[in-house]
Amino acid sequence: MRAAVIDRHGPPQCITLRELPVPTPGPDEVLVRVAFGSVNHVDTFVRSGAWRTPLAFPFVVGRDAVGTVVEAGDAAAAEFRAGDEVWTSSLGYDGRDGALAELVRVPRARLYRCPAGLPASELVALAHPASTAWLALFRHGHLRAGMRVLVVGGGGNVGWSAVHLAVAAGAVVVTTCGTDDAFDLDRAGATPVDRAARLDRSTLGGAVDLVVDTAGRNDLEAYLDVLAPGGRVVLLAGMATRASFPVGALYLNAATVTGFAISQASVEDLALAARHVVDAVERTGLRPRRLSSVPLELVADAHARLERGEVRGKVVVAVAAHHPPAPRTTPTEGARAVPT
Amino acid sequence: MRAAVIDRHGPPQCITLRELPVPTPGPDEVLVRVAFGSVNHVDTFVRSGAWRTPLAFPFVVGRDAVGTVVEAGDAAAAEFRAGDEVWTSSLGYDGRDGALAELVRVPRARLYRCPAGLPASELVALAHPASTAWLALFRHGHLRAGMRVLVVGGGGNVGWSAVHLAVAAGAVVVTTCGTDDAFDLDRAGATPVDRAARLDRSTLGGAVDLVVDTAGRNDLEAYLDVLAPGGRVVLLAGMATRASFPVGALYLNAATVTGFAISQASVEDLALAARHVVDAVERTGLRPRRLSSVPLELVADAHARLERGEVRGKVVVAVAAHHPPAPRTTPTEGARAVPT
Repeated sequence: MRAAVIDRHGPPQCITLRELPVPTPGPDEVLVRVAFGSVNHVDTFVRSGAWRTPLAFPFVVGRDAVGTVVEAGDAAAAEFRAGDEVWTSSLGYDGRDGALAELVRVPRARLYRCPAGLPASELVALAHPASTAWLALFRHGHLRAGMRVLVVGGGGNVGWSAVHLAVAAGAVVVTTCGTDDAFDLDRAGATPVDRAARLDRSTLGGAVDLVVDTAGRNDLEAYLDVLAPGGRVVLLAGMATRASFPVGALYLNAATVTGFAISQASVEDLALAARHVVDAVERTGLRPRRLSSVPLELVADAHARLERGEVRGKVVVAVAAHHPPAPRTTPTEGARAVPT
Repeated sequence: MRAAVIDRHGPPQCITLRELPVPTPGPDEVLVRVAFGSVNHVDTFVRSGAWRTPLAFPFVVGRDAVGTVVEAGDAAAAEFRAGDEVWTSSLGYDGRDGALAELVRVPRARLYRCPAGLPASELVALAHPASTAWLALFRHGHLRAGMRVLVVGGGGNVGWSAVHLAVAAGAVVVTTCGTDDAFDLDRAGATPVDRAARLDRSTLGGAVDLVVDTAGRNDLEAYLDVLAPGGRVVLLAGMATRASFPVGALYLNAATVTGFAISQASVEDLALAARHVVDAVERTGLRPRRLSSVPLELVADAHARLERGEVRGKVVVAVAAHHPPAPRTTPTEGARAVPT
């Protein structure tokens, strides 16, 4: 089978297309034929070694996969049968091989059923960002209906999902974005605020109970300033940035700053997030934006473009030779468009 | 009755000794004859106006009181009777008059029974610091038996209580301190680390699950570095300081930084803390250190010394003309010793 593989940590060009033996699923695993994978920032950290996680070379890269069950190990057979449409968001780290191969084995607890009516290419584009957004808002941010939340970076992949999930949960959502995202975010039910504007209570229409920074802006001093008493800030991006704040503003306001990386999420938390992502797709019509697709041969190129900051929206990887119907959204410049 | 009063926000010398009418308790309040009050840093913030809280002039200063019930309002009479020995830790802010008067009225939900066998002067010295320490460790720090906690500043009033409460809860306690506090903290069951030493995992004997900074050192970068995955930092002092940290160290480690001020604690949280303080006094022998006592006439002077950083340990205020037996511990230089 074909796979996107590295033999050592290094730059994007370490990734090569290679024939590997088909993996044998263990009793608790499921063998899946992959239709689509994706490229995430975290995949570039695993590849380069910037984030150290246990792995064995040759190592298949990639975290997310959408595909079809080929066979299930004994302990997984009651749950999954050949032909089931499934997805996962947690391959390619912590000792597990990655998703960008024609066939992958997935622990059954990390495998979820696909929502009806969404092309595989669109689901795979939501897998990582929407799961991240759900964990940020609800698991770490404790968001509830009626609360006011500021989503920093509503135009990004995680931010876009966060806005939809928060609106669907009955929260009042304010979001920073570029001017070209304001219309879509407004239509999604959020109040857009230009990202160049000063972040204060008058700009945001009052204090907020939660700030989720999906953009790595990490302007903690401003966030503490707009936070209601007992409020929370969730940080999850901008690995190389520093944050600084006046301590009195934190403790006099009983504020909490919490960080999380989905790579540290438990199997249970990931499954919970997956359930809510499927629910949001089916009930609230959550869809990805600015989708583009590359074949397995161009994964190295996609890593390079992501690292150079040239990717806007989401790059998915068409793994199967004949993949399901293509997405409807506009491709990013420089990436190969999915045929419509 | 005599009281330590301010007529405006300002420097320590705004505090004057004055005759005021005896307050009339409401139905839900209890009139208490005060034996001892105390002087806390937060009292100087209320006096100066650095911390803005609703109050009416002439305003009686002081937060903590230990004394005897004189009479209880109708709704409080089932719970409190004349002669009961009681204490409180939340007068003097948020619209309530302060503690440094011969008679004070206390909402019944803010009044607690004294533990047996502890002089009023010692209990009043624990009221604010030990309540603060309990809330920091358990309410905000989620400390449980078997966890490793770093108490920054174990020689201070809050830190000393925190060490005792954490040890009693079955935690493994490491604490930074000056050389002259190391012996006492070791005997209290903690591992002392010189406060001038570099804070790293080797100094601390491994990672910690919780850091509680009682000293306002607020070296967040070092705390994140020694924190186990999913660990917490509680900040509660050092109002004028700033903290700075690398964001990746927070979110890759799923760490949380939370702040709190006891002045924002709910009535329920304060009562819960009080119950645990009483328990620690009765069961684990928690006692204050470096106690000194001043009469009502010298409250202004005590504020001034506290602001100049000249107070080590705790200054209590002997309010009643004839107060209960005095504490056993050594007075601080420059303060009047409690007669033994």
